[in-house]
Amino acid sequence: MRELTVDLGERSYPIYIGEGLLREAASYFEKCGLSKRSPLLIVTDEHVGPRYLPALEATLRKAGYQTVGITLPSGEGSKSLAVFESVITKALEAGLDRHSAVVALGGGVVGDLAGYVAAAYMRGIRFVQIPTTILAHDSSVGGKVAVNHPLAKNIIGAFHQPEMVLYDLETLQTLPARQVSAGLAEVVKHGLIWDASFVDWIDGNAGKLRSLDPEALGYALHKGCSVKAAVVSQDERENDVRAILNLGHTIGHALEAVAGYGEMLHGEAISIGMVGAARIGVELGAPQEVYEVTKRVLAKCGLPVRLPSHFDTDAVMDAMMHDKKFKEGRMVYIVPTAIGQVEIDKNMSADRVRRMVEQLKEEAEV
Amino acid sequence: MRELTVDLGERSYPIYIGEGLLREAASYFEKCGLSKRSPLLIVTDEHVGPRYLPALEATLRKAGYQTVGITLPSGEGSKSLAVFESVITKALEAGLDRHSAVVALGGGVVGDLAGYVAAAYMRGIRFVQIPTTILAHDSSVGGKVAVNHPLAKNIIGAFHQPEMVLYDLETLQTLPARQVSAGLAEVVKHGLIWDASFVDWIDGNAGKLRSLDPEALGYALHKGCSVKAAVVSQDERENDVRAILNLGHTIGHALEAVAGYGEMLHGEAISIGMVGAARIGVELGAPQEVYEVTKRVLAKCGLPVRLPSHFDTDAVMDAMMHDKKFKEGRMVYIVPTAIGQVEIDKNMSADRVRRMVEQLKEEAEV
Ligand SMILES: NC(=O)c1ccc[n+]([C@@H]2O[C@H](COP(=O)([O-])OP(=O)(O)OC[C@H]3O[C@@H](n4cnc5c(N)ncnc54)[C@H](O)[C@@H]3O)[C@@H](O)[C@H]2O)c1
Ligand SMILES: NC(=O)c1ccc[n+]([C@@H]2O[C@H](COP(=O)([O-])OP(=O)(O)OC[C@H]3O[C@@H](n4cnc5c(N)ncnc54)[C@H](O)[C@@H]3O)[C@@H](O)[C@H]2O)c1
Ligand SMILES: [Zn+2]
Ligand SMILES: [Zn+2]
Repeated sequence: MRELTVDLGERSYPIYIGEGLLREAASYFEKCGLSKRSPLLIVTDEHVGPRYLPALEATLRKAGYQTVGITLPSGEGSKSLAVFESVITKALEAGLDRHSAVVALGGGVVGDLAGYVAAAYMRGIRFVQIPTTILAHDSSVGGKVAVNHPLAKNIIGAFHQPEMVLYDLETLQTLPARQVSAGLAEVVKHGLIWDASFVDWIDGNAGKLRSLDPEALGYALHKGCSVKAAVVSQDERENDVRAILNLGHTIGHALEAVAGYGEMLHGEAISIGMVGAARIGVELGAPQEVYEVTKRVLAKCGLPVRLPSHFDTDAVMDAMMHDKKFKEGRMVYIVPTAIGQVEIDKNMSADRVRRMVEQLKEEAEV
Repeated sequence: MRELTVDLGERSYPIYIGEGLLREAASYFEKCGLSKRSPLLIVTDEHVGPRYLPALEATLRKAGYQTVGITLPSGEGSKSLAVFESVITKALEAGLDRHSAVVALGGGVVGDLAGYVAAAYMRGIRFVQIPTTILAHDSSVGGKVAVNHPLAKNIIGAFHQPEMVLYDLETLQTLPARQVSAGLAEVVKHGLIWDASFVDWIDGNAGKLRSLDPEALGYALHKGCSVKAAVVSQDERENDVRAILNLGHTIGHALEAVAGYGEMLHGEAISIGMVGAARIGVELGAPQEVYEVTKRVLAKCGLPVRLPSHFDTDAVMDAMMHDKKFKEGRMVYIVPTAIGQVEIDKNMSADRVRRMVEQLKEEAEV
């Protein structure tokens, strides 16, 4: 079992990573001081609930916790105000009070939605993250919670830190391969922004990660969570340094929007975005290997590194403007300067980004 | 012009109270450091907007601010998730960004709703309160923002402090008399929980307050806001002392629910609740004058001090259980011990409260 702490003063919390933690969840809930007198609401989805909710409820109930479960449709569509309201209704019907907690059992969709319920219910109650995707090593740490509006992703939300993150590696064994790769994109990102030796390690262990080797996974998720925790500790509310977590995301979000949400997975979109950012980095003076290593490692993780040519460059640029708003043709952009290092460029030109989007259609597959 | 500060460390903010502040709003916005490059969204309602929105927009635009207004239906019904979503849509269409602010121009309904939009939009942007009711001297200070769920009031919300509160006494001149009295209930409450000499002052000046004498109003609202600010500074998130602000509210909320929201105004309901709390206080040893003064001052403010006999005691008790949940027949209750002083009784018996609800139907009118 690996353990680390997200250091946020009185809002600090532990992350536990290991095999079989779900079956022992009750002891972690007790250690965390969660009340047995007030009901817990466990939020999950159709793919995760049938597999893992019974075991979680069993251990909690055996220890004297009162639990109520709610199973949502899988997918980004559940991050809506309508589903948010239905979960609040469930919380009211179940009699959740100020000492209750909301428990997210699932990927980033469940985590973001359940977290926003916890942030809003009675102006904020406790919240536990039990991530079941690789991507959720990112989304479950840092306290960003949100739902979508038809016009914009994650626009309705809060900063609401969990009480703990309980990461059971066994649950990852049932992830579809495409989801495994998509999740690894954020793992690679955490290396690229912070830790060259970790990138090197992924370069040598991508195969083990894709085959869900428990030891390799445990190592990588611990490393990934540590980077996320370090960044968030320095800048909880994204006033400055937290922005580096957006490496590859400016283009990535635009690609997701243009493809139609759900067509291209988030991890796939940011993989292409990170290749683009590496290209820009090299243009601006970073060593050539920044581009080569980035592309190679992402490809080894089973991720796309080339923009399918049917994407319309104008549409991608429009989506970017809508998202981040270039002010007078300039925008904030995260640019790699070396492997394991990035800088925040507050004055990136839209023209350069457009050229790079064009180039991404020409990338050779690895 | 009167001024005070709500002392909350880095979240501290000023309250300005005076005549004609709306016409000079731009200079306060500038002093507050609000950005002219990002649009402001002004939220108001049908009764307030036609009267005061044009003047507010005029001064702001003249100073170079970009403003967009949205006018909601008046009344508690606007504190819903559906209206919340429509305001978020407006904010997106208007291009609000991280440096924008949401401005609430109206009573507590507009303030609570607009504040929750500000708390949620992009996980929190700035927020300005321009209260236009007497009741809103209470709701605009302290950062509690929320919308209702069909099953429970204020259940979906956040703590989100404004950047400033700008209280223009001139706007109060158009308030209907019943709203004036209802607002005075919270003014009286602030005296009863904190400041005997202020209660004494209200006793002698209730007539001036009801006729909206500017000097008396300015004094009373400054006093009321000061008490609220002092309590909130000590306990922003209602872990302990902030609970005293609930004097009269346990019964009050139940009466509102039983009457059907909107039938009995919030201030009317808590007025009856404060008479009941005073009675219990005397039963438990407070001097008889606690009851007499409470009742007299509320009546002088034009407020009901007797529970109409058609209210069903069982229904009132049920509503209370639903709201606060007696645990084994016991609940938290705010009990006056002297004029200007209350204590938090965490072990009040449901039986005693029921007896008191019965007695409230027998109160003599003053
Ligand atoms: N809050 C943050 O900081 C943050 C960071 C990154 C991403 N996100 C959000 O995370 C979301 C994406 O997260 P995600 O990729 O985990 O998506 P997801 O939650 O939709 O999970 C992906 C798919 O895998 C299924 N699944 C989950 N766990 C499984 C398991 N153990 N076995 C089999 N199937 C399983 C899900 O049902 C779903 O179909 C997006 O909404 C994104 O905005 C948030
Ligand atoms: N956030 C808090 O701490 C807190 C505290 C107390 C009450 N509240 C909330 O405040 C709300 C009640 O506030 P309220 O009593 O101000 O209600 P309100 O906002 O509904 O205003 C009362 C009525 O007066 C009208 N009005 C407002 N200003 C006017 C003016 N200057 N001239 C003419 N008409 C005017 C409104 O259109 C409305 O019809 C409730 O929803 C309650 O939950 C919140
Ligand atoms: Zn991401
Ligand atoms: Zn009140």
